[in-house]
Amino acid sequence: MRAVALMTILVIVAPVVVMAGEGESVTFDLMPVPAHVRLGEGVLEINDGFSVGLTGDGATPRLERATGRFLRRLSDRSALFFAPTTFLEFEARGGVQMMIQAARTGKLVVGEDESYQLEVAADGIRLDSETDLGAMHGLETVLQLLTLDKNGVTLPLGTIHDAPRFPWRGLMIDSSRHFMPVAMVKRNLDGMAAVKMNVMHWHLVDDQGFRVECLSQPWLHELGSDGLFYTQAQIRDVIDYAADRGIRVVPEFDLPGHGSAWLTAYPQLASAPGPYEIERSWGIFDPTVNPIIEETYTFLDAFFAEMAELFDDDFIHIGGDENNGKHWLANTEIVAFMNARGYEEPLMLQRYFNERILEILTRYGKRMIGWDEIFQDGLPKSIVIQSWRGRESLFESARLGYSGILSSGYYIDLIHPTDHHYLNDPLPADSGLTEEEAARILGGEATMWAEFVSPETVDSRIWPRTAAIAERFWSPSSVRDLKDMYRRMDRISLWLEELGLQHERNRPMMLRRLCQCRDLEPLEVLLGAIEPVKVYNRNRLRKHTQFSPLTRMVDAAWPDAAPAREFRWTVQRMLNDGFSNDADLRAARRALVAWRDNHAALAETFQTSPALSDIVPMSTALKDVSSIGLQALDFLNTEVPASESWLEDRLEKLGAARESHGQTELMIVGPVVGLACAAAGPAGAKAEGCQAKEQPAATDGY
Amino acid sequence: MRAVALMTILVIVAPVVVMAGEGESVTFDLMPVPAHVRLGEGVLEINDGFSVGLTGDGATPRLERATGRFLRRLSDRSALFFAPTTFLEFEARGGVQMMIQAARTGKLVVGEDESYQLEVAADGIRLDSETDLGAMHGLETVLQLLTLDKNGVTLPLGTIHDAPRFPWRGLMIDSSRHFMPVAMVKRNLDGMAAVKMNVMHWHLVDDQGFRVECLSQPWLHELGSDGLFYTQAQIRDVIDYAADRGIRVVPEFDLPGHGSAWLTAYPQLASAPGPYEIERSWGIFDPTVNPIIEETYTFLDAFFAEMAELFDDDFIHIGGDENNGKHWLANTEIVAFMNARGYEEPLMLQRYFNERILEILTRYGKRMIGWDEIFQDGLPKSIVIQSWRGRESLFESARLGYSGILSSGYYIDLIHPTDHHYLNDPLPADSGLTEEEAARILGGEATMWAEFVSPETVDSRIWPRTAAIAERFWSPSSVRDLKDMYRRMDRISLWLEELGLQHERNRPMMLRRLCQCRDLEPLEVLLGAIEPVKVYNRNRLRKHTQFSPLTRMVDAAWPDAAPAREFRWTVQRMLNDGFSNDADLRAARRALVAWRDNHAALAETFQTSPALSDIVPMSTALKDVSSIGLQALDFLNTEVPASESWLEDRLEKLGAARESHGQTELMIVGPVVGLACAAAGPAGAKAEGCQAKEQPAATDGY
Repeated sequence: MRAVALMTILVIVAPVVVMAGEGESVTFDLMPVPAHVRLGEGVLEINDGFSVGLTGDGATPRLERATGRFLRRLSDRSALFFAPTTFLEFEARGGVQMMIQAARTGKLVVGEDESYQLEVAADGIRLDSETDLGAMHGLETVLQLLTLDKNGVTLPLGTIHDAPRFPWRGLMIDSSRHFMPVAMVKRNLDGMAAVKMNVMHWHLVDDQGFRVECLSQPWLHELGSDGLFYTQAQIRDVIDYAADRGIRVVPEFDLPGHGSAWLTAYPQLASAPGPYEIERSWGIFDPTVNPIIEETYTFLDAFFAEMAELFDDDFIHIGGDENNGKHWLANTEIVAFMNARGYEEPLMLQRYFNERILEILTRYGKRMIGWDEIFQDGLPKSIVIQSWRGRESLFESARLGYSGILSSGYYIDLIHPTDHHYLNDPLPADSGLTEEEAARILGGEATMWAEFVSPETVDSRIWPRTAAIAERFWSPSSVRDLKDMYRRMDRISLWLEELGLQHERNRPMMLRRLCQCRDLEPLEVLLGAIEPVKVYNRNRLRKHTQFSPLTRMVDAAWPDAAPAREFRWTVQRMLNDGFSNDADLRAARRALVAWRDNHAALAETFQTSPALSDIVPMSTALKDVSSIGLQALDFLNTEVPASESWLEDRLEKLGAARESHGQTELMIVGPVVGLACAAAGPAGAKAEGCQAKEQPAATDGY
Repeated sequence: MRAVALMTILVIVAPVVVMAGEGESVTFDLMPVPAHVRLGEGVLEINDGFSVGLTGDGATPRLERATGRFLRRLSDRSALFFAPTTFLEFEARGGVQMMIQAARTGKLVVGEDESYQLEVAADGIRLDSETDLGAMHGLETVLQLLTLDKNGVTLPLGTIHDAPRFPWRGLMIDSSRHFMPVAMVKRNLDGMAAVKMNVMHWHLVDDQGFRVECLSQPWLHELGSDGLFYTQAQIRDVIDYAADRGIRVVPEFDLPGHGSAWLTAYPQLASAPGPYEIERSWGIFDPTVNPIIEETYTFLDAFFAEMAELFDDDFIHIGGDENNGKHWLANTEIVAFMNARGYEEPLMLQRYFNERILEILTRYGKRMIGWDEIFQDGLPKSIVIQSWRGRESLFESARLGYSGILSSGYYIDLIHPTDHHYLNDPLPADSGLTEEEAARILGGEATMWAEFVSPETVDSRIWPRTAAIAERFWSPSSVRDLKDMYRRMDRISLWLEELGLQHERNRPMMLRRLCQCRDLEPLEVLLGAIEPVKVYNRNRLRKHTQFSPLTRMVDAAWPDAAPAREFRWTVQRMLNDGFSNDADLRAARRALVAWRDNHAALAETFQTSPALSDIVPMSTALKDVSSIGLQALDFLNTEVPASESWLEDRLEKLGAARESHGQTELMIVGPVVGLACAAAGPAGAKAEGCQAKEQPAATDGY
């Protein structure tokens, strides 16, 4: 079998090979980068007469539907008018321009064959795969290869052999903190499929809401959700939608901590007297399910029986994280139970709880997955650990024989730049794991915790950064060029839009609402230089609840703002290489002038827009910092160093500009400090404020 | 009862009264304009402490949910942080800033009381209504009154007494030609509620697709939909969603013509042998249900029994339009049946069919509504006629005692400018109807036929123009100021965005896809001067099917492009009043210069964007026409008239520029002809090409 033979080649993690005619370098915009790419000279033209044939036992209805969507996107992007027959008939007759052959139906299980082989030749396209899942990945690759330029609508000739590095490539969607409508979930499933992800981990239950209809214990959704829950029909619809795109749906029901919503519905299961209500704020809370009463297990048995039927994946995620144990230790009966069994700490009691749950899940044919805290040696090796604590804890369990996935380093809610996530390898070369142990690292998941996202903003926190994370999970570990990653991500971001994702298009709408105006240019300029505060600082700076507006500048702001990033890189190059590159000097000056003058352009808008009031100091700071940057460039231009007193004064001002406003931070302070220090010549090299290691802001690899 | 007494006042169709302190004129952005508005001096500030109380037997769960959505939008737009209690408790205790009182639950029936009375005073807001439906309209008015400016977040003090002019204010959504996902329907229901519309007419069946799950005759959706249909659970979800917003859902099952999808599923019901398949192109087709076999009625009896249960509205729409009768007249048995009964033409047989259907619908407790063709005198007066043919046919049936609604003039798919629809009154003062007859004109419906819209573009064809149509159905007939309408519509368009509507935000995304670039300015400038071709010309110019891409410039183009409209108005003023207004001269010149220079700015984009190829000639034409306009302004400036030969040459070029390209038309040719003729002085006044009545393009009222 051709496809099987192919696999043997592809499991080797190989560097990308790009060959071009006559030494020319060939650029391409694939993300994730395939395992093997060979692009030759020449192109294949796509025109109105395009047609596709499907063959093989893997030519499933699922692959037919995927081919229909592929054709729709191909036609939409190229504006080509394909005949109705192109969409309605996938006969593998002669004369079709693209032939897809899949050997069998792929199963939605960990480790299924997802490889494919694509050949674009002058006489047509061949896509071969072992499973229909592999062919679907190949269709996404073809759409990324599609080129619209002066040659018309074409594909480059060449061959791609591709297969994923890891079998578990996930995105976690939190529907509890803020409820996410089905439409949000579906468009993000499309986005996942476009970058070859294959697991949607659905965080359905937390302190702030119980989001799935439960027929056996209906108070869960009736009292625990404010009416914002998924009906079972909707859940089935989403699972079907995901399966149609080769994506598994792993539901999470967080236990025994994060229990406010469970216990609002059924307080009799609680470890403390209550009363309980849905939690409206953010943090770690005390409500915890009581693990020592049989009623808990009777209840959960019925619950998991129903959920095991509703969700068809092999896995159920039981959470298990952040149980602070307070309510257990405050309950004399629970303490007595712990004492009787010799449990010295709550984690040991939680192990008891987990074992009881594991018994239930196993009985219903499910494997258990949970966060770091569920891991204790001695549990059966069938469980999977999801690590939010870090790679070391993952490697530790792999050494002990447990499979795991990495989420530490992929917390996209924390608004880190893309490179931070991208360079975080689940299995770096220096892991110290044996080959057998390494095989237990199944992959990873980006986690979209929803404290600070609404259906309106969530796509902009997921995309396009998650495309880079998807590449980390799929592509060879050697693919690490940041500049090329950013270039490709910028292209992919546009293509993700065609799936209905709102990450680009909602920002202007949010700005229009903020200013009640249509001229957005100055607000966009401001957004180019700022980002939301990182990690968990947002709630620290201003206490938010589930009802707080997520419609301010901080919410419209990009994570990883491109103009600020470009400026940091430019300044970094100048500081490294001297100030002789005219293009860099011009670019830096142009950016600083635009930022300096922007505050005046916003003056009237600020006067009439109360919803922008908290961002005014940031606009002022941008003006001030940019002015200092321009002064520094002037000094550097004249080659007369700035005075020590100038430097001292400006460093103080720059220090003050690091303060956040409106929960945003200014992303150009570091490089301007660098310019100011350089402008002061030898005095700058010695000044204390010039030694700070973080200036200019770190951009690994540059 | 206060609310009842209020009604007596409000049913009088009264001119808008706006009173301001000390003779100042007060502008406001309400759409639809209320029946009575009295705004005084001063404002009420809204701050973080805002709270709402609900009272009265009309304080229904529906009104609670509507209040929750109101608070969400109020908080989102203002960026105010309301406490969780504000969202969770609507106790009518003292101290709340806004008190809502509704006397009873409103029924979703024609003619239900939808009035409300709003008073904004220095000490708080009072919203009173007879029904919760009226209160919900009042909440939308409050959101439109919300002012964000240098005074902060405020409402103007004043009083509004409001009630609709017509009880049937609808939007028809066609889900057959292109299937529209539930998310599209829901966001448009939100848009409808925001402008106080109360009927969604759902065109679920046509030649191109049968879009509703039918359990009793499942081949309808299984064979008639390509898998694109609404499950009954989804239908119920949509009906609930609509009812929650005070909107009735009237389903349409088009019969006996438009029958391709019906007959693809059940060819035994056809009038001709077939075979049948889902129609993929646009037009009027022959397939027609056979009205002389009993099987048809047995089938439809079971079908309507199921649909009457699924849809809870009083009405079912049976279509009835555009049955060309060809298949009937080609069927000897049908002809024999007609001869036996003395039916001289197919319409008489259709009357027989309608009477049989009416009997079925009546038995299931439903009233029948259909297009013009269902009307024949003698039918019971309970039926309602929807007129696509024109007001005269509507008045005719009103005189005979039949109720009707107007859709002629509200075909938003035909891309007419807003004023065309806005000035089309269902019941003009010169209707000649008696008061009793006039009461039979129930209102109207905008119709969004879906041949040329996808889920991506459809919102931009519905909004914001439908807001102006909604005003025609709600506001006093005297509200007809076009300039003010356009001003308010432009504001409302932004607020409609907060409901998730995509009419503004998808255009940049579509442009990014077309150019595979991010600098959209020149493409936006081009779009400012062109519009999609009108009426049914698009399919005439290029044959489309259900699978054709709707992603080109014609699809991104606005109906009623604002920059071109502003230019037409400016030129009209100059032609009327002489060329002495400097501001107008400057504005016209600025617009023409931008258009002339735009082609050069697009040169590179055009070279590399094959999907833009069909719009290149339009960009060239824009350059040429603008250059002529600038030359004309130069002549007018020097006061030396242009020569006759110049005029002749330019008129010929302008004539050529009326040709459409890429299914778009240039919207500035008429005014430039006007300028050229004026530039030629007395010679221009005589020239043949200067007599054309349509230049500059008509803008009634200006």
